[in-house]
Amino acid sequence: MENFIYNTPTKVYFGKGTEKELGKIIKSYGYKKILFHYGKSAIKKLGLYDLVIKELKSENIDFVELGGVEANPKLTLVEKGIQLAKKENIDMILAVGGGSVIDSAKAIADGYYVDHSPWLFSIGEKKPEKVLPIGVILTISAAGSEMSNSCVITNDYENDKRGFSCELNRPVFTIMNPEFTYSVSPFQTTCGIVDIMMHTLERVIASPNVVNPLTDYISFGLIKAVLEAGKIVLKDPTNYDARATLMWASSLSHNGLTGCGRNYMMSVHQMEHAVSGLFDNVSHGAGLATLWPAWAKLASKTDPTRFAALAYNSLGISSEVEIGDAANYAINYMRSYFEEIGIPTKLREFGIKKEDLPKIADLYTFHGKRTIEDIILVDYDTCLKILELAF
Amino acid sequence: MENFIYNTPTKVYFGKGTEKELGKIIKSYGYKKILFHYGKSAIKKLGLYDLVIKELKSENIDFVELGGVEANPKLTLVEKGIQLAKKENIDMILAVGGGSVIDSAKAIADGYYVDHSPWLFSIGEKKPEKVLPIGVILTISAAGSEMSNSCVITNDYENDKRGFSCELNRPVFTIMNPEFTYSVSPFQTTCGIVDIMMHTLERVIASPNVVNPLTDYISFGLIKAVLEAGKIVLKDPTNYDARATLMWASSLSHNGLTGCGRNYMMSVHQMEHAVSGLFDNVSHGAGLATLWPAWAKLASKTDPTRFAALAYNSLGISSEVEIGDAANYAINYMRSYFEEIGIPTKLREFGIKKEDLPKIADLYTFHGKRTIEDIILVDYDTCLKILELAF
Repeated sequence: MENFIYNTPTKVYFGKGTEKELGKIIKSYGYKKILFHYGKSAIKKLGLYDLVIKELKSENIDFVELGGVEANPKLTLVEKGIQLAKKENIDMILAVGGGSVIDSAKAIADGYYVDHSPWLFSIGEKKPEKVLPIGVILTISAAGSEMSNSCVITNDYENDKRGFSCELNRPVFTIMNPEFTYSVSPFQTTCGIVDIMMHTLERVIASPNVVNPLTDYISFGLIKAVLEAGKIVLKDPTNYDARATLMWASSLSHNGLTGCGRNYMMSVHQMEHAVSGLFDNVSHGAGLATLWPAWAKLASKTDPTRFAALAYNSLGISSEVEIGDAANYAINYMRSYFEEIGIPTKLREFGIKKEDLPKIADLYTFHGKRTIEDIILVDYDTCLKILELAF
Repeated sequence: MENFIYNTPTKVYFGKGTEKELGKIIKSYGYKKILFHYGKSAIKKLGLYDLVIKELKSENIDFVELGGVEANPKLTLVEKGIQLAKKENIDMILAVGGGSVIDSAKAIADGYYVDHSPWLFSIGEKKPEKVLPIGVILTISAAGSEMSNSCVITNDYENDKRGFSCELNRPVFTIMNPEFTYSVSPFQTTCGIVDIMMHTLERVIASPNVVNPLTDYISFGLIKAVLEAGKIVLKDPTNYDARATLMWASSLSHNGLTGCGRNYMMSVHQMEHAVSGLFDNVSHGAGLATLWPAWAKLASKTDPTRFAALAYNSLGISSEVEIGDAANYAINYMRSYFEEIGIPTKLREFGIKKEDLPKIADLYTFHGKRTIEDIILVDYDTCLKILELAF
């Protein structure tokens, strides 16, 4: 087991009706002026917009609103949020929505105490030293941002999308009622299923020489639960227990638990950020579903061990099956699963053209400045090869 | 899945050499005057006593010491600690040791801001509203107190032992270097293995009608990892990865993770507190190993489902095996495992006599005031029956 730091300070209120505690929860922290941040119409349809207003008013908590967050949240709206928060002397941001809203809130929180654009945090030129606290009401099971330290923002001036991690970015509290995800569309649900699994898969399918059965069993167990629940919710969208499994798995999959004591680099996630940074119509989960099997095919040739572990521990394959065969089984299983749940598995399905692939590889390498090494080294050439396999 | 609150604010520094960060970690929180709390000679033999002194001095952190914590930590020493902490204006307690030292530190932290005995917290007459922060260097993998909200203290005036839970009691940080557990005796190691497993077993083998595959796979995966690592460390006490598995499992098993979305009552733990409250020579883990199979035998007659789940998910039993048979297999497996790792499995092995059993049952019920219902209702009569089976 490798050394690690585990830090999950976010207090989770999970289950039916927990949103009705919002006012009391905010009051318990003593926050006085809230920026209520959200996306478009979804939370209004859910009745959640009205409930938040009612909860804040019932506890006499002052607030201002900023809606309009889009998928792949944009720097321009973040900057608007920072201006508003500064003007209104906000002391806490309430993000109501999915990963995009939470990430937008994190970027506003990071930019509140500084005089420069929060994009400098995204590109690693500066590090946040003090940020506004964030609270969350989660409405989509996917990104895991509700407990994570990460924040992905698209710079819509430069067509660049970057993720960065900072422990200060972990929300103070998160309210999760799985019923709010009943109305998430089948396509967004499948994107979420893939994103959840990938957060754990990219952590656990890494560093083949690290002995760590505890994190293995936890992580592969989580993947097994998500594979099962994913099939259930697509047939039965209001199945509470399956929706709850996806929602709690989304948090556990990205809060650090499934990577404890294992080195990992998340290269597929980084490639996907380049894809959806250039092509706004690519949902993160769908992008991952195209890239992971391609990466896995290459990586398993170098070392099939971890892919075989997926087969043995999540997919019910006997440990007597030879490692190479088990690894192939696992990769084929995942590809078939993605097809079965109806998510695009080829980049061309998004209208991406073959001549676009070098641009994606270039953005992935930060224009020649970065490579990522995990089971395999992913440099410009390997990235291009993976994109071609995924095309 | 049942509603739950998940709250694990303790920051974990896990792995080799992490103890050398102690001074910097304490400094980062700004604590000025520390109560350095520990047991007897173990931490001196490990060189940890000298290291702590060196770390505190190197960062100019003022401190006072209080050693002498015994197994089943005593109220009299807690009271001494509170007096000392008040006199010296302590602002943080550093507990260096195992569960007993941490629990003693928690009770001191709870008593610091009040004018009454912290025993009033143990018996539920008062609730702590403000406590001193605690940091931990862990040297024994067992109790899980390093991340938990619970605190078990023995009232040595009244021969009573009580556990109580309070979210304020979760340590602020915990440093865990598995190498410090290399020298833990085989007997204490086996007690730890049982304690770790029981914290998860008592959470996951409960509420048969709750559908919760995610927590199931995580919890049964943890048990599988502990069963494997337990056998390894008893043959090879300096096996780092197996010691690391036990240490991280000790925290995850009692920080709340393995009970998320599942109702549980920990009745076996409560019966064991009565046993070791009356018989100081009974180690908590050993007491659990005598009681759990006896409780399981009775409870599985009422509902074998959860015991069968243990067989299917941790013990490699095919799901085609009938539930009753699988449940019996699981209970017999656990009893054999305890025998194999050399832990007492009968109460009489501790010198307890048959006529002592009613006294234990009486203490378990708080002299007729309490029963606990989980898969079965454990009242005085059922407790006595379990004690007789365990005798």
